[in-house]
Amino acid sequence: MPEPDATFLLELADAADRETLPRFRAGGGIDNKLSGGAFDPVTEADRAAEAAIRQIIAARFPDDAIVGEEFGTQGDGERRWIIDPIDGTRAFISGVPVWGTLIGHYVGGRARLGIMSQPFTGERFYADGAAAFLKHGGGAPQRLATRKTTSLGQATLFTTSPRLFSGALLAGFEALERDVRLARFGTDCYAFAMLAAGHVDLVVESGLKPYDIAALIPLVEQAGGVVTTVAGGRPEEGGDVVAAATPELHAAALARLSGG
Amino acid sequence: MPEPDATFLLELADAADRETLPRFRAGGGIDNKLSGGAFDPVTEADRAAEAAIRQIIAARFPDDAIVGEEFGTQGDGERRWIIDPIDGTRAFISGVPVWGTLIGHYVGGRARLGIMSQPFTGERFYADGAAAFLKHGGGAPQRLATRKTTSLGQATLFTTSPRLFSGALLAGFEALERDVRLARFGTDCYAFAMLAAGHVDLVVESGLKPYDIAALIPLVEQAGGVVTTVAGGRPEEGGDVVAAATPELHAAALARLSGG
Repeated sequence: MPEPDATFLLELADAADRETLPRFRAGGGIDNKLSGGAFDPVTEADRAAEAAIRQIIAARFPDDAIVGEEFGTQGDGERRWIIDPIDGTRAFISGVPVWGTLIGHYVGGRARLGIMSQPFTGERFYADGAAAFLKHGGGAPQRLATRKTTSLGQATLFTTSPRLFSGALLAGFEALERDVRLARFGTDCYAFAMLAAGHVDLVVESGLKPYDIAALIPLVEQAGGVVTTVAGGRPEEGGDVVAAATPELHAAALARLSGG
Repeated sequence: MPEPDATFLLELADAADRETLPRFRAGGGIDNKLSGGAFDPVTEADRAAEAAIRQIIAARFPDDAIVGEEFGTQGDGERRWIIDPIDGTRAFISGVPVWGTLIGHYVGGRARLGIMSQPFTGERFYADGAAAFLKHGGGAPQRLATRKTTSLGQATLFTTSPRLFSGALLAGFEALERDVRLARFGTDCYAFAMLAAGHVDLVVESGLKPYDIAALIPLVEQAGGVVTTVAGGRPEEGGDVVAAATPELHAAALARLSGG
């Protein structure tokens, strides 16, 4: 069987973009996934993009398992595709282009390939198994590398919202926020892409699902960064996650988050 | 003397974009404006863009006063240009395209014209004295209109950071945050543009300078929205500012922010 490569990732992103971009800022199509008071929008774009991605994968790699936010799990085995058709649905429905389509590939439980596509800005951030790249519009791919920041006092920290933390992790996050040079909110997957590209040094997120992080693990790692759970374990199954530009910064952030 | 118009605003944005865009994500050039512990980055891009804008205005409208974030006030009188060469410098230095160049024009203390330019996405949001528009890349200008949301329970609220509020305003903001359907952070001027474009319903910001809001007042008002201080007064001099998609929503937000 052929191995998936960067060309295949870009093909998947093309298919997703054809479903998401025409619906971005077009209004309408917002359902409410939860019956209670919480607001969890799901757009037509989510479902159409995931369906398009699944169809291409199933045709090319029929033995691979597929796990997606909208349509669940099909198949099992060593090779698994993990899809979030729109990470940052709330940004999407607010018109702000920091959402992305996330597609990751695991082999034996380990993230190897991944792509984040942001079609409004025309950016694809991806990792091919050896290195990470940004392809912007019709330009040539540029190799990505994380910044060499090693101390919290020089670091820029991102998270989607401080409201997503609670308990001991909230206290740890607030300690971290006090120690960094700059803290910013509101970015979803875009912050991990900026970390891989060397513009941001730390990203902390709480309560991630596997599809929120799958594509971003190889992106961060193959750009030279480190990404683990807050407990220091592998992040493939999600949870509370810390990504850092360097091992030193990662260790400093973990220590602060755990009350050190 | 000729009156400034949309063509002139777009010409100013072109000049600013030539200075900002090549420096976006290029690294380097970050100074620290404050000698103390706080981090207030000023980039070369800020200074070069403001200088370019000032030069064009001074040549075309030599009797108008100019107020800018980087180079202060020159001249006085009824007609005043208010410039923030890069609103959202922190987003700029983090690689996230929610910053913008803001240029407003006041006549007799009242904001009449304004433009927000975001060159990485290729978007110009502007108000020509009668209506608000978005011009995206080489496309034709599209007329902007705010959404018709009247209740907090249906509203999407944006602010740059909840950390910027304190005291009674913090309590009011938290009450507002609880009542809206969706609250998001991290957008700087981009949230006001999304409000004018009908994707977002409320924006609350604290401690604004005149140049943080000047360009955005006509954008919001000429798209059908309402923007005032938290006390309900005109927002031209900045301060704590509330922008809303409709008068009803604005009244509901002001009531909540003042403890009602």
